Amino acid sequence: MIYFDNSATTNPKPMSVVYAANTGMKNYSFNSGRGGYNQSVLTSQKIFSVREKLSSLTSYAPENIAFTLNCTMALNMAIKGSVKRGDHIIISSVEHNAVSRPVEALRKKGIITYDVAPISYDPDVTVNSFRKLIKNNTRLIVCTNASNVFGGIIPVDKIANLCKNNGIRLIVDGAQTVGMLDVSGTNADILCSAGHKGLYGPMGTGFMAVGENIAIETIIEGGTGSSSLNLNQPDFLPDRFESGTLNNSGIIGLGAGIDFVMKKGIKNIYHKELTHIQHLYNELKNDDNVVLYTPYPEKNIFVPILSFNYKDYPSEKTANLLAEKGIALRAGLHCAPLAHKYYGTDERGTVRISPSVFTTDKECEIFLNTLKKL
Amino acid sequence: MIYFDNSATTNPKPMSVVYAANTGMKNYSFNSGRGGYNQSVLTSQKIFSVREKLSSLTSYAPENIAFTLNCTMALNMAIKGSVKRGDHIIISSVEHNAVSRPVEALRKKGIITYDVAPISYDPDVTVNSFRKLIKNNTRLIVCTNASNVFGGIIPVDKIANLCKNNGIRLIVDGAQTVGMLDVSGTNADILCSAGHKGLYGPMGTGFMAVGENIAIETIIEGGTGSSSLNLNQPDFLPDRFESGTLNNSGIIGLGAGIDFVMKKGIKNIYHKELTHIQHLYNELKNDDNVVLYTPYPEKNIFVPILSFNYKDYPSEKTANLLAEKGIALRAGLHCAPLAHKYYGTDERGTVRISPSVFTTDKECEIFLNTLKKL
Repeated sequence: MIYFDNSATTNPKPMSVVYAANTGMKNYSFNSGRGGYNQSVLTSQKIFSVREKLSSLTSYAPENIAFTLNCTMALNMAIKGSVKRGDHIIISSVEHNAVSRPVEALRKKGIITYDVAPISYDPDVTVNSFRKLIKNNTRLIVCTNASNVFGGIIPVDKIANLCKNNGIRLIVDGAQTVGMLDVSGTNADILCSAGHKGLYGPMGTGFMAVGENIAIETIIEGGTGSSSLNLNQPDFLPDRFESGTLNNSGIIGLGAGIDFVMKKGIKNIYHKELTHIQHLYNELKNDDNVVLYTPYPEKNIFVPILSFNYKDYPSEKTANLLAEKGIALRAGLHCAPLAHKYYGTDERGTVRISPSVFTTDKECEIFLNTLKKL
Repeated sequence: MIYFDNSATTNPKPMSVVYAANTGMKNYSFNSGRGGYNQSVLTSQKIFSVREKLSSLTSYAPENIAFTLNCTMALNMAIKGSVKRGDHIIISSVEHNAVSRPVEALRKKGIITYDVAPISYDPDVTVNSFRKLIKNNTRLIVCTNASNVFGGIIPVDKIANLCKNNGIRLIVDGAQTVGMLDVSGTNADILCSAGHKGLYGPMGTGFMAVGENIAIETIIEGGTGSSSLNLNQPDFLPDRFESGTLNNSGIIGLGAGIDFVMKKGIKNIYHKELTHIQHLYNELKNDDNVVLYTPYPEKNIFVPILSFNYKDYPSEKTANLLAEKGIALRAGLHCAPLAHKYYGTDERGTVRISPSVFTTDKECEIFLNTLKKL
């Protein structure tokens, strides 16, 4: 199989990740922070070491990084914990349903109103687009760091400045960028991401990284092994946002995934994958049967994600035909209807190519040759 | 190490579970239900096979079983999705913070009021205790199936009848009973449980099993790979409650855990573990230095959990001294302050013994001999 669906989850997982999760399950299946016995303490330390790895990657304090089931759970916690009745939210025009559905749910309950800022490949135009929508009651901007469908990078560092100057909280969805771009200067009040995409960790891992002095209400409460006599959720991190038992082996696997990424080098990974996408773009551009939706994927403007359609086929048909030839990629809306509405592909969807660090030149050639014959 | 903290998480995990999670990560790290390629479809089928295993164990329909990070997440989803402003809730006097903290959070927000029903070892007294607290606006009873501190089983089937007769929804916390007791006749509207305790699955697994025609609002929304153009969360299960990427390898490991439990036989596991606890109870009862808090742990009245204290030591001191001798058990409040208040142990906490199917007679003897010398 040639796997081009790495934006959904990277595959394969590095052997070091599989091994770490495996030995993690054998050696660290203990409840961290609850028992006083040695194995429980060692488990807490092991989990904390992964917070430290994420901290050096993202620049958030290790204890301010809470592990979640996935990026979606982290985004729900961040968004719903940041607003009160009457607030106004701005989101970008390419948000994933992990953002647009919770925001829409808040609107339907009459808690908030929101507007959608059209993004551009010109950073200043994008920032201005957000600026124009700011109202007196704008409390929150939620913005992906890069479109999971079309790959365009959004200048969240500039949006962070806009937010700081206007007393607005910024939540960044880093699902497509953590492990791919340097996110240490993002300066978002809250950064949410998955552990199983650009960080090559096991599925079932995600995190919410919180800046200093950012108060967030909880949407989930429960046992934390701390302040147990108090029926109120603890106010300190990460306990406040980690109720119940964590996915220990997954988190330990994620630690190995971060090591893998750091060893390869984020810049090198980005360069390698973007080179594939640029090559594919150039080839596909010369094929009259192919429809492309973006300008040439320039460095620092795009993450290595490319959407296209073939002939007049529905996107699913193209993907199914490719699947029959052993090429796995995803078609449809990619859980991002706003992005498709913005690009006018909401009826047809797109076929999405997203490589990983394991993708080879040869796989790209096979894909191109196979597509031509469909 | 002698491990007596299996109520927190069973340890070790069976080799079949470790193996299944390991091969699951290698073979099924694909996004189920999103891609049209073969591996994605096979992944969906594999995940569904675990729903089917849980279905045969619990009697809920496979598609009505949603996977979560843990039991706490499932309970938060069930509780918060079941109430509206002005409702009244009744919980038992031995609830874990996974129930009492979300219920208290709802009360503090002014959404609900609640009362606490004192439980008894006489099932009829317990049911009557709930009955007496029912008001006109009682919408929900949330009740653990067994105390995680003192082991007493609560007759949730009888409480289910009470609920049915009064138009009240029942949510059961099965964290200490699924895999230990036959829960197929529980008849709760919603059953929540962990996957990593009595089912011997990996940490980071839990589920919410929902009865037919039980409407539940969502607290988390996001991409589901279904109805993607709709900004509203799907209304069908399990998608409605499974936003974002699942913990595939954990769920597949859980499947092997269920197989392990079914092969051993739930009744056999219960009998073996309860026999240990009954033996320990009899021995500890004859030791003047030991304080016990419950009557003799009779079959069908107790799950195999025993709380005690030693001399005038704080519970943590006893646990730490035992830890030094290689015996791992948990002291303190076990995230269940209500239960400790009810038993008068909220200042001191208790030392808790919870065996697993791997616990041996010899380990129990070593524990008894070690305790005597503290």
